[in-house]
Amino acid sequence: MDNKNLTYSVTAIDEKKRKKSLFIPAERPLTLYLNKRELITIMTLGMNTKSLVIGYLKNQHIISSLEQILSIQIDWDVNAAVINTVTLNDRVFNSKKTVTSGCGQGTMFGDVAENLKTIKLNEQYLLSQGILYEIINKVRLHDSVYRKAGSVHGCALFRDKEMLFYFEDIGRHNAVDAIAGKMWEEKMSGEDLVFYTTGRLTSEMVIKGAQMGIPFLLSRSGVTQMGVEMARKVNLTLLGRCSGKHFYIYHGENRILFNGLD
Amino acid sequence: MDNKNLTYSVTAIDEKKRKKSLFIPAERPLTLYLNKRELITIMTLGMNTKSLVIGYLKNQHIISSLEQILSIQIDWDVNAAVINTVTLNDRVFNSKKTVTSGCGQGTMFGDVAENLKTIKLNEQYLLSQGILYEIINKVRLHDSVYRKAGSVHGCALFRDKEMLFYFEDIGRHNAVDAIAGKMWEEKMSGEDLVFYTTGRLTSEMVIKGAQMGIPFLLSRSGVTQMGVEMARKVNLTLLGRCSGKHFYIYHGENRILFNGLD
Repeated sequence: MDNKNLTYSVTAIDEKKRKKSLFIPAERPLTLYLNKRELITIMTLGMNTKSLVIGYLKNQHIISSLEQILSIQIDWDVNAAVINTVTLNDRVFNSKKTVTSGCGQGTMFGDVAENLKTIKLNEQYLLSQGILYEIINKVRLHDSVYRKAGSVHGCALFRDKEMLFYFEDIGRHNAVDAIAGKMWEEKMSGEDLVFYTTGRLTSEMVIKGAQMGIPFLLSRSGVTQMGVEMARKVNLTLLGRCSGKHFYIYHGENRILFNGLD
Repeated sequence: MDNKNLTYSVTAIDEKKRKKSLFIPAERPLTLYLNKRELITIMTLGMNTKSLVIGYLKNQHIISSLEQILSIQIDWDVNAAVINTVTLNDRVFNSKKTVTSGCGQGTMFGDVAENLKTIKLNEQYLLSQGILYEIINKVRLHDSVYRKAGSVHGCALFRDKEMLFYFEDIGRHNAVDAIAGKMWEEKMSGEDLVFYTTGRLTSEMVIKGAQMGIPFLLSRSGVTQMGVEMARKVNLTLLGRCSGKHFYIYHGENRILFNGLD
């Protein structure tokens, strides 16, 4: 169901006028047809596409349970995802849109931030500094489209030091939506999981992490002020600038066990 | 009209459990009300806001000329931009949406790619390698929110080595939209301009650059396959991985004058 060509080879000219053969990531449109109506076109790498579609519908609050989806067919010959569901409220086609600051999807329907008030994240799941370093290192070593071609964002899900999934896409929001979709498909709860993203921790990334019930959100990039604000609201442990043996905890240090490692 | 607080100071905890005072960029919602109807909420840094609003309406093909806008009022007390225009076709509220892969805006209405066919970019404006290096260096040295707080994207407009504008935002699409808006306000044609972005060169970035009539698009980041494809379609000179004295030309090397510099 996924598109097999995730990278392409192109010839570029460098500063010495030399021809260089380089890999670049694929980018392709995928138009979602929901119950025979065109919903939206997503620009995507074409990896984990079914999970992306499910996660998109979930994170946009278009569906509230996996059971509402009767079928999904992805056809890369015509760049279409045909989704059939039980009868949905018509408002999904006309609701409030938020264009987010992050890479990727960029669109959220409805007053998502409002829903945060009902979220309670696990206060008992702690992470030691040693496990944290192992997570950072595993992401670094992971065989990815990014390592081959650059220019994509990755999102990973860990249980302690075990990497459960690593999804990539052109925009980090596609990657996080695909992870959310996969968690639904696998009926996973987020309470003992760690979410890693290569992208910046903006409000929307924190909201999506919290909606998955995940207490830890890590990034090798930085944060925005609303990212921190949202983390404070739901008491999510937010770590940025994770690289090698360095990190910053922007919120929720109570869940980190310092081992005196450096 | 701009929000004055573009960065915030926060206290983070580092890997040695030390408190660190860090700057992070602002992120705030701005809800656009178009002729008394809510159009969309954009997450933004709050810089060059009027240009952002104008550029957004332009790049989404909601308005086709600046004269259609009767007034814009931005009120940061209620995070709102109130826009009055001449009568617009109702379709702007319900048209086809494309969720793009890039950072930022993420939403394009209509079959934008179709419009590319009518674009003819200036074939006479050439850029020497020396000017290219000056542009790269000026961006590097520019006093920016990025240098202070990280986690934002910048877009700059150059005429040869002269930097005309440098706009930043949480997402690169906001930054490029603000540049497009500013160009409209200043009645500038893009034919002798160079567009620089810190973000990746995806299809949407190339489309927006081409729509501004700019023959050169530079980035310190990489490209996607559709970014290259779009550049080929309109013969736009596309340079990625610009850093120091290094660059890759992905398309349109006919506009670059190699000086044998390195």
